[in-house]
Parts: sequence; structure tokens; C-alpha cells
Amino acid sequence: MAGHVSDAVIRRLPGYYRHLRELEAAGVTSISSQELGERMHLTPSQIRQDINCFGGFGRQGYGYKVSELKGHIGEILGLTKEHQVIILGAGNIGCAVARYPTFSREGFKTIAMFDVTEDKVGTRMGDIPVYHMDELEKFLAAHPVDIAVLALPKRYAQDTLQRLYDSGVRAIWNFAPTDLQHPDDMLVVNVHLMDSLQQLSYRMAHRENAE
Amino acid sequence: MAGHVSDAVIRRLPGYYRHLRELEAAGVTSISSQELGERMHLTPSQIRQDINCFGGFGRQGYGYKVSELKGHIGEILGLTKEHQVIILGAGNIGCAVARYPTFSREGFKTIAMFDVTEDKVGTRMGDIPVYHMDELEKFLAAHPVDIAVLALPKRYAQDTLQRLYDSGVRAIWNFAPTDLQHPDDMLVVNVHLMDSLQQLSYRMAHRENAE
Repeated sequence: MAGHVSDAVIRRLPGYYRHLRELEAAGVTSISSQELGERMHLTPSQIRQDINCFGGFGRQGYGYKVSELKGHIGEILGLTKEHQVIILGAGNIGCAVARYPTFSREGFKTIAMFDVTEDKVGTRMGDIPVYHMDELEKFLAAHPVDIAVLALPKRYAQDTLQRLYDSGVRAIWNFAPTDLQHPDDMLVVNVHLMDSLQQLSYRMAHRENAE
Repeated sequence: MAGHVSDAVIRRLPGYYRHLRELEAAGVTSISSQELGERMHLTPSQIRQDINCFGGFGRQGYGYKVSELKGHIGEILGLTKEHQVIILGAGNIGCAVARYPTFSREGFKTIAMFDVTEDKVGTRMGDIPVYHMDELEKFLAAHPVDIAVLALPKRYAQDTLQRLYDSGVRAIWNFAPTDLQHPDDMLVVNVHLMDSLQQLSYRMAHRENAE
């Protein structure tokens, strides 16, 4: 089913999920492609195309059932599975991720953080224990981990990625501001904050072309 | 010059800038489309097309001059101008942005933070003073601000955006996990962390299709 989904649609999927979650929370049970398009700044026909593309939920004239569509998109996004997460780096970004309420609600469960700073190692961030980086391999040998979040300085990121790979971790969510080399069977998704800020400054400099 | 630049190229521009900065820091003075393509996981012909597209720096067979190309892309990205920035919310994300070393180096200068928490208001985050949210309008009347960073809970984001707009701020970098309504002459770029994490879980669920 998802084999024919284009990259552009994949990029839009989390947006659909977010809007449908907000609609569900607001008690909305069904929505037309027109209304959903207005919320998401897409045309009704683009909405219909996207939704047809990921599973044929087209109900032209009747609207989409919000919960059903949200559940279906959640499945495509892999959200029906619980993911075990560790966070490397207990600085501001690591703590922001650990405390982000939506992540645990959507099944991303942070089970440990790792740092090298004396006043952090041995403490807890909420429920989450903070271990020393030296204990990483021992921890991974005992606990299966689906996703490792890299929230440490750029200069440590590449070595840490290799240690994670050697211990069997195959998915990285990277906040270090660099593009990491990684084996083909390891997935890496980057959050390059500077890229996002530069897109804003680009649009400010070329404001006449902006949406 | 930048009038013909497609959205896809604009999305890639910050990546070019990042790689060229790293190359410059490593002492590399010129690079071929082949080598740059390998670093960026693009084909040499895509590199040449992109670079032609944003200003005809094509030097096939001779390579690109790293500093010159970086300077040119920096100009297109609006990085030659200094941007005055304020951060709304002095929690983990606000502090991570305030402390991100690259931002100030690239001309994004945080001049104030705002919060409502008693133990934060009146303190300084490094050099940056933290004011009470009630002082926002007074501050903006006295200081021109180019970009406001929304790093506060979702439920306060929309009202705060309106206050910023009413005080003349026209560009928002939004970390609140919601899509904000905004006037046409206000630019909003979102960092939706959940979208990024869901792209990772999508790729994990459909690993056979991943890069």
C-alpha cells in the first residue's frame, strides 16, 4: 500500500496526523477535503489525491471520518508500535526531547539518557535515569533500543554513532549540526536547526516570493 | 537571480552552506561537483544544476571555489544581514536556541528572552536578559526585532503571535507543536519535532524503501 507513496506525500503525512489529532481532540468526527485543505493550506484536490495515494479513503461528498483516517495514517507512520528510545546528551536539547509530552503519548518511550557531566550522571530526569557514556555498551547489551537521539556536541557525534551501530542500534535521530556518515542499514534523520532558521532568513530576504 | 529558484533547491541551500562551511573550516579551497555530490548524497549533475540555478557559478572541470560559493549562497540565504532575535519561553528549547553557538556566529543575535516563571524573570541566560512576558510590548517599542522564536507551550502560542504582530514583528520561528494562524504579511517557519521523529518511524516501518 505505501509502496507508491512519494517523498512529498511522506513529508506531508505527519502534518495530516497532527491536524487530525487536533480535530479529534476538538470533538470533530468528520471533515471534508475542503475544510481539511483550508486548515493545512492545501487544495481540496491535493488532499483527495494524497489520501487516495495512501490507501483509498476517498469519500467525496461525505467527508473523511477523522478517527479512522488518523488511525490509518498512524499505522502508516509506524506509530502503532512502541519505540524504545535513549538520548545521548543531557543538555538543553536532550532534556527538551526527554520532556516533550507528545513523544511518550505517541509511543516513543525514553528509557535512559547518557552524559559525561558529573552533576548529571546518576541523577534522574523525571523518571528517566541518566547514566555515564561509558555504560552505553553495557546498557545496550541488556536493553533493546529502537532509536537513539544524538543531542551531544558535533565533535562526539560520529564516534557515538559508531558505538551505537556496533551495539545494534539501527535508527538515529540526530540534533548535532553535521551530516553523519553511517552504514547503509542504519537510518539517520537529522534535525538541522540552522537549516530551518536559514529558510526563515531566506524568506525574509525574498519576502515578495513568500506564501 | 533567486526568482527562479525552486522550492526543492531552496530546501537544499542550507545544506550547501553547511557543507561549504565545513570544507572551508577544513582548509579546502576548491571542490568538484563530483566530490561535493558524494558529501551531500547528490549526483554531480544535480549539484551543477542547483549551482547554475542560483547564479551560474558553473566551472565544470575546474571545481568550485569554496569560499566564493559559500559567500554567494550566504547572500542568497540573507546571512549578510544581522538579525535581531528574541526568544519567547526560557524553558529547555528556548535555552537550547539561546546557547546554540552557530546562530550568533551567523548573525542571529538574541537580544532578550521572555518568560513568566518567577525564578527565571530578572536573571540572565549567559549575556541575554530574561524579562517578564508582560514587558514584551514595552521592549518591542524600544528595540527593533527581526525574528521572534516561539518556544512556549502550545496553548500560549497563538495569542503571543498576535501580540508580536501587533508590535511589528513579522517573522516567527515556531517550536510550539501546532500550526499557527497568521496574517499574510507575517512569515512563520515551523520546527515540528514530532514530524521529524515520525519521518524516522515511517522509515523504520518501511525500511526496505529507505535510502
